[in-house]
Amino acid sequence: MGVKVKVINGPNLNLLGTREPDIYGKDTLADIEAALTALGKELGCELEFFQSNHEGELVDCIQGCRGRVDGILLNPAAYTHYSYAIRDAVAAVGIPAVEVHISNIHQREAFRQQSVTAPVCCGQVVGFGVDSYLLGLRGLVGIIRGRKQHL
Amino acid sequence: MGVKVKVINGPNLNLLGTREPDIYGKDTLADIEAALTALGKELGCELEFFQSNHEGELVDCIQGCRGRVDGILLNPAAYTHYSYAIRDAVAAVGIPAVEVHISNIHQREAFRQQSVTAPVCCGQVVGFGVDSYLLGLRGLVGIIRGRKQHL
Amino acid sequence: MGVKVKVINGPNLNLLGTREPDIYGKDTLADIEAALTALGKELGCELEFFQSNHEGELVDCIQGCRGRVDGILLNPAAYTHYSYAIRDAVAAVGIPAVEVHISNIHQREAFRQQSVTAPVCCGQVVGFGVDSYLLGLRGLVGIIRGRKQHL
Amino acid sequence: MGVKVKVINGPNLNLLGTREPDIYGKDTLADIEAALTALGKELGCELEFFQSNHEGELVDCIQGCRGRVDGILLNPAAYTHYSYAIRDAVAAVGIPAVEVHISNIHQREAFRQQSVTAPVCCGQVVGFGVDSYLLGLRGLVGIIRGRKQHL
Amino acid sequence: MGVKVKVINGPNLNLLGTREPDIYGKDTLADIEAALTALGKELGCELEFFQSNHEGELVDCIQGCRGRVDGILLNPAAYTHYSYAIRDAVAAVGIPAVEVHISNIHQREAFRQQSVTAPVCCGQVVGFGVDSYLLGLRGLVGIIRGRKQHL
Amino acid sequence: MGVKVKVINGPNLNLLGTREPDIYGKDTLADIEAALTALGKELGCELEFFQSNHEGELVDCIQGCRGRVDGILLNPAAYTHYSYAIRDAVAAVGIPAVEVHISNIHQREAFRQQSVTAPVCCGQVVGFGVDSYLLGLRGLVGIIRGRKQHL
Amino acid sequence: MGVKVKVINGPNLNLLGTREPDIYGKDTLADIEAALTALGKELGCELEFFQSNHEGELVDCIQGCRGRVDGILLNPAAYTHYSYAIRDAVAAVGIPAVEVHISNIHQREAFRQQSVTAPVCCGQVVGFGVDSYLLGLRGLVGIIRGRKQHL
Amino acid sequence: MGVKVKVINGPNLNLLGTREPDIYGKDTLADIEAALTALGKELGCELEFFQSNHEGELVDCIQGCRGRVDGILLNPAAYTHYSYAIRDAVAAVGIPAVEVHISNIHQREAFRQQSVTAPVCCGQVVGFGVDSYLLGLRGLVGIIRGRKQHL
Amino acid sequence: MGVKVKVINGPNLNLLGTREPDIYGKDTLADIEAALTALGKELGCELEFFQSNHEGELVDCIQGCRGRVDGILLNPAAYTHYSYAIRDAVAAVGIPAVEVHISNIHQREAFRQQSVTAPVCCGQVVGFGVDSYLLGLRGLVGIIRGRKQHL
Amino acid sequence: MGVKVKVINGPNLNLLGTREPDIYGKDTLADIEAALTALGKELGCELEFFQSNHEGELVDCIQGCRGRVDGILLNPAAYTHYSYAIRDAVAAVGIPAVEVHISNIHQREAFRQQSVTAPVCCGQVVGFGVDSYLLGLRGLVGIIRGRKQHL
Amino acid sequence: MGVKVKVINGPNLNLLGTREPDIYGKDTLADIEAALTALGKELGCELEFFQSNHEGELVDCIQGCRGRVDGILLNPAAYTHYSYAIRDAVAAVGIPAVEVHISNIHQREAFRQQSVTAPVCCGQVVGFGVDSYLLGLRGLVGIIRGRKQHL
Amino acid sequence: MGVKVKVINGPNLNLLGTREPDIYGKDTLADIEAALTALGKELGCELEFFQSNHEGELVDCIQGCRGRVDGILLNPAAYTHYSYAIRDAVAAVGIPAVEVHISNIHQREAFRQQSVTAPVCCGQVVGFGVDSYLLGLRGLVGIIRGRKQHL
Repeated sequence: MGVKVKVINGPNLNLLGTREPDIYGKDTLADIEAALTALGKELGCELEFFQSNHEGELVDCIQGCRGRVDGILLNPAAYTHYSYAIRDAVAAVGIPAVEVHISNIHQREAFRQQSVTAPVCCGQVVGFGVDSYLLGLRGLVGIIRGRKQHL
Repeated sequence: MGVKVKVINGPNLNLLGTREPDIYGKDTLADIEAALTALGKELGCELEFFQSNHEGELVDCIQGCRGRVDGILLNPAAYTHYSYAIRDAVAAVGIPAVEVHISNIHQREAFRQQSVTAPVCCGQVVGFGVDSYLLGLRGLVGIIRGRKQHL
Repeated sequence: MGVKVKVINGPNLNLLGTREPDIYGKDTLADIEAALTALGKELGCELEFFQSNHEGELVDCIQGCRGRVDGILLNPAAYTHYSYAIRDAVAAVGIPAVEVHISNIHQREAFRQQSVTAPVCCGQVVGFGVDSYLLGLRGLVGIIRGRKQHL
Repeated sequence: MGVKVKVINGPNLNLLGTREPDIYGKDTLADIEAALTALGKELGCELEFFQSNHEGELVDCIQGCRGRVDGILLNPAAYTHYSYAIRDAVAAVGIPAVEVHISNIHQREAFRQQSVTAPVCCGQVVGFGVDSYLLGLRGLVGIIRGRKQHL
Repeated sequence: MGVKVKVINGPNLNLLGTREPDIYGKDTLADIEAALTALGKELGCELEFFQSNHEGELVDCIQGCRGRVDGILLNPAAYTHYSYAIRDAVAAVGIPAVEVHISNIHQREAFRQQSVTAPVCCGQVVGFGVDSYLLGLRGLVGIIRGRKQHL
Repeated sequence: MGVKVKVINGPNLNLLGTREPDIYGKDTLADIEAALTALGKELGCELEFFQSNHEGELVDCIQGCRGRVDGILLNPAAYTHYSYAIRDAVAAVGIPAVEVHISNIHQREAFRQQSVTAPVCCGQVVGFGVDSYLLGLRGLVGIIRGRKQHL
Repeated sequence: MGVKVKVINGPNLNLLGTREPDIYGKDTLADIEAALTALGKELGCELEFFQSNHEGELVDCIQGCRGRVDGILLNPAAYTHYSYAIRDAVAAVGIPAVEVHISNIHQREAFRQQSVTAPVCCGQVVGFGVDSYLLGLRGLVGIIRGRKQHL
Repeated sequence: MGVKVKVINGPNLNLLGTREPDIYGKDTLADIEAALTALGKELGCELEFFQSNHEGELVDCIQGCRGRVDGILLNPAAYTHYSYAIRDAVAAVGIPAVEVHISNIHQREAFRQQSVTAPVCCGQVVGFGVDSYLLGLRGLVGIIRGRKQHL
Repeated sequence: MGVKVKVINGPNLNLLGTREPDIYGKDTLADIEAALTALGKELGCELEFFQSNHEGELVDCIQGCRGRVDGILLNPAAYTHYSYAIRDAVAAVGIPAVEVHISNIHQREAFRQQSVTAPVCCGQVVGFGVDSYLLGLRGLVGIIRGRKQHL
Repeated sequence: MGVKVKVINGPNLNLLGTREPDIYGKDTLADIEAALTALGKELGCELEFFQSNHEGELVDCIQGCRGRVDGILLNPAAYTHYSYAIRDAVAAVGIPAVEVHISNIHQREAFRQQSVTAPVCCGQVVGFGVDSYLLGLRGLVGIIRGRKQHL
Repeated sequence: MGVKVKVINGPNLNLLGTREPDIYGKDTLADIEAALTALGKELGCELEFFQSNHEGELVDCIQGCRGRVDGILLNPAAYTHYSYAIRDAVAAVGIPAVEVHISNIHQREAFRQQSVTAPVCCGQVVGFGVDSYLLGLRGLVGIIRGRKQHL
Repeated sequence: MGVKVKVINGPNLNLLGTREPDIYGKDTLADIEAALTALGKELGCELEFFQSNHEGELVDCIQGCRGRVDGILLNPAAYTHYSYAIRDAVAAVGIPAVEVHISNIHQREAFRQQSVTAPVCCGQVVGFGVDSYLLGLRGLVGIIRGRKQHL
């Protein structure tokens, strides 16, 4: 049976493709969402997309997932490093979440190496560019389905 | 065309399945290798496996990859947190490497949250249990093939 | 004579009652507001309520208190630990504020033990569950009335 | 039915009223005890008082509470910041304790912002002057009575 | 030829003139904007103004500058000290930005001495009161014009 | 009426123009002094110049300003980061001082981000190249004249 | 020939057996003293016992050992982590001392992992429950007798 | 009934007797093993010995204990301070382990005062020279036998 | 006119003369008190002496000075480094206090270099052996007499 | 017999009397030198004076003391906190030195509480204003004369 | 007379010449050994070579030097930064050792700037490429021969 | 062809031979300069010598090397640990510099283990006594000549 996943992107990810392309690549957010939709179809998984630069809207969106979706695919972007509000929201809704990052945060500024949201997520995928999202979706669907039926 | 990947596991991972199963799950290393082999076949990817508790043997093995394999799938286990020797080996051979962890290291002891090897890897996958390996292999093959042909 | 108090709740407190009930208890925000209203009546104190997940809206709300209310009862939730914007707002309006927390933040994660807003509040009440609000209101009214008429 | 509470004050609180009155106010310890007695009567709560400058006597006194009183209202004063002996005593007797401070410790020297005793108390009230005691007593009685009957 | 500059003010700066005047002075934000407009005229520089207490709106506004203005004059106020989202936005749009502060942040609380946004700005002016804005505008126009034509 | 300002430059600034020009630009100290003199004339401000590689001579020079000049424009260069002697001298003479830096010290080595002299200066201008001096002079003259007559 | 040992127990150890029995076990201090007496007899060693919650009394007691006993078996309990007074007393009397702890302090709160008294003791035994005392006594007697006659 | 214990010694302990004798004493490893064998006989305890300078061999040896011995007496020597691989091995095999050190590590270099292996051991004995092993064996046998039958 | 000074000595100073004489010298506390008495006579200053190993008694003693003596000469010994209770007592009584140490605490263990009591004393004399007391008394009398009449 | 002492004052102390008089008092350096000369006469001690703002001159001066004077009375002023060159000079000449400070450095900025020179001096006197010098001289003469002849 | 020196190279140095040549240069380990042999001949010094990626083998090799060689020329490579086992081995054998590094470790990652082995070596040479070895050998031979005969 | 090298020695090195000879040896600076001159002749290298206790003179001297010498042999002595002015001078002149230290700074006080000048030097030699200079000169000449012609 199909599962439903919310894909939530944080601040400045709406600029993907044009923003510092040597770090974040040339794919736009629309490209990523298209690739995710294609993979979702393959995995029997319906997707909804949300992006916001506003911490509060991200919290609202995560809260709104409760009772409506089976998992959250989350790139908190800059909020990864300080938003305890998003952390608390993920913990509060009790839905499995997977954190993804486009770049390898371990090769960048020191502040990017601490994630305050990772401890309340199930897993984390970093450094594969756009593929971080696709791998993250596969991992999340595996977690939702009880893992390992068919990855 | 097929690619060749070395799967390298660090200390105590030979005990998987029996070692602290609430943290590391019930799959044995053989189970993981079988699942990887199956996925490798699907992805047109030949796999070689190595496990050792010896830091020096892991360094030897990584060195031996040069000119022989296209990528390294690496779970350095406890060495993740202090083996600059393994870090230097990965940097020295210049082959794309992906780091994977079974458990979500961000939910555990403070020392497990620092990886000295991640900065010389391309990407990192943590917290998906055995699926961390399968997702890591997909990501690695994507990197080797120039990404995104077909994840 | 009656005093007017604004009760301001931060992110994820709209989920009270269902959110991690072993930490935050089973009372909803509506239950808390009802209990506060009852106590307010007893103390001759009119209450207004506001909750938001948005840091900016909380800042707006605090600013809007100037010249309109006599005190602020504030649970900044996750923002307690990093929102210098809320801190500056409280300092800017110059109205007595009391900070409350439902759980005993001293028994939880290290990051919850630092409050960046407490230094600009008059007092702080933590760990009494819903009663933290009721005690905080009593304390705040005492401060507004010059303290100690009748607590 | 009535409850019995021990009110325990630590070092230098016997000087209240004359000691740095701009920080600690003009009420003496006797004034505080009188106000507490009055509130105790209102709440159906019998009070016993103890003050000492000696860490060991405070530990003895806390130990002596076991089996004799229902709760402890504790201002450890300077010992708040380093007395693991008092912390262990509170943990050992297993009676609900509430920590109170007259001044807002978050507005003072850095060392005053760490409480080693708060993690073994149920709640903490800081910054309301003498009212910290009264609010703390109300909170403690609420905890003893199962909370929220009537605060 | 004329240049176009966006002047962006962060949280609580709408209260200028009334907010802690011993620190921030008696000029209102309108006064500052008027002074900037006058100086802009002198420098052949068109100005647009924006103020918000919302981190997300500040990020939106910075993003909206791309392709529309030649430079950003930015007082992130409290967000200076923790908003990696604003930092990333400034880095993403690739427009020269100058950071200004009214007070000398080096004479105040420790947390105010770290700016997470300064590393992605061209320059920083602090401590001149309202003149910080005027000096910042001059400096920014100099950077846009290739510097030093006529400061 | 005219004001008198001492322009004091610290170690290695005599090499400007040839020293690491990608960081410090191609203008020599003589160029800077000429530009300052021109601006001084415009602002009705007489300038005196001093440069030394010797911490002690810089302290002597600052002391010598007392009763002779109205303000100090100071680039302590490397001494910025450790010379408490210069800091004490500035504090001792009680003349308004403005600190300037050519490069954006927030984009460089960690040690350059701490200024031990900034807390005793009125303001700080960093990152505008030679214009840092010109902006700093304007700001300093504004402070001396009681600010805001006409910047 | 017989040796004489003082067994000194610090704060809250008088509650052993009833205090947090999952950490400290069910043996009372009397049980421990009885077991020590029995072992002492076996080892030809006379014992004296002292327990106090008062840091000063513990210092007095240690001082009183000089010239009277051959060794000190010491469980400073909570004082282990901050009592430089006890440390100085042990150093001052120049009698061999052995520090013991019932629980494995390395598995508990961070503050329990620092012992300020261990550097002035000869040895330390932790984590064996009541046996920590018995092992400590054996070790101490060995040290007194010049070691290794017969452990 | 008899118990079986593996005695495992880490790097450089094969040099005992000749290595820095003022710190480590004059007994050789053979002397220690002989003393342990004698005590083992007394305690009804069969011993096996292993020493290696290789972290990997120590991990292998600890793994090999599973299902074969009842307890591990472990001196990880220098690895004590950084070998998370040995720590994980001890945790993985689930056999009670006791950590011993010849010298009082609390009187030496700072790095020697942190043990990364102690948190997964039952107990620790430090500072008694060779007797640390004998006391550690007694303590370990006590733990294996359910403690306190006869120490 | 004569002044009255209380000389207060903390833990283990009763052992002076015999305690670690290479650090603390061969003079006994009685010798020091005799030397102080002689100097007091010379300075027209009456002295009272107190020594205790008990933190609480030291606090009691300091409190008892209020209204009775003109100054306190204080060697808090080990309590120097952690007794916020003594610090608060000194601050509370508002009598000038001078802190003295026999040894040069800057040449010893790191923990001895932090004094929590010095910030509430007027001055501090360290490292002169017994003369630290004599110099401290002179300094204290100078402070009491308004300084510099005749040192 | 007479002793010879060099009195060395560091940067900005030539401004004493006019420099921040609420911290450093109204006495000039000449006043201090006169008072020291008077006391020197009383103590049978010849004095030489030196002041410089130059670290190098202070090092030269300290070096020049070798074989010429019996002791050094040193106020390194700001250099106290970072001049390892002065520290090394004091250590190199092997003449007893006493460090003095006018203000109580423990009540001021954090950086003033670390002295890098104190560990190579015999003693330190802080906080007595000008009397710090007089007390320091007495202490130094005592050290030179073998102490305690007559303080 | 001739001296005998063991040249010991740590992990990944077998890859020299091909490994990150912009950092480590183009010379192979064989080239270095040849250059050392040539210089050894010139200095009357016989050399033996060893390289291993295994920490344990390096420890074994160092131990094996005792009584067989007069000095050790050691490049511990990555183990420099964490191998207390190698440090202890060097300390244990009591043979003069010199540590060398090809690159200037002070210009690289922070972790490379701490050497745990340098404190037990006589000297250290860093940053001269292959010449680091040659200089190190000269220095070592000088130490063995009592220094300075002829460098 | 010959090369020209400036040998620059920092504070207190003029006292070599008499200053703490157990740390710095018995050779005077003249001895070192003689040995260097001899080696210089052997290497075809002309030497100039400079020593100063003044940081500013050392900066002046380094600046004066530009265009006049081919390399700098530098022992900054105490300034090694804090002189960013010397660091900046070395970086500014762009001449290869080698840092040398007589003692093994890794075996001494913690502050001596950080060099702020090493990151702008090519190499560093420490711990060989006077030979550190001779080895440093050889290494420097090698760098100037393109390395390895003939060491």
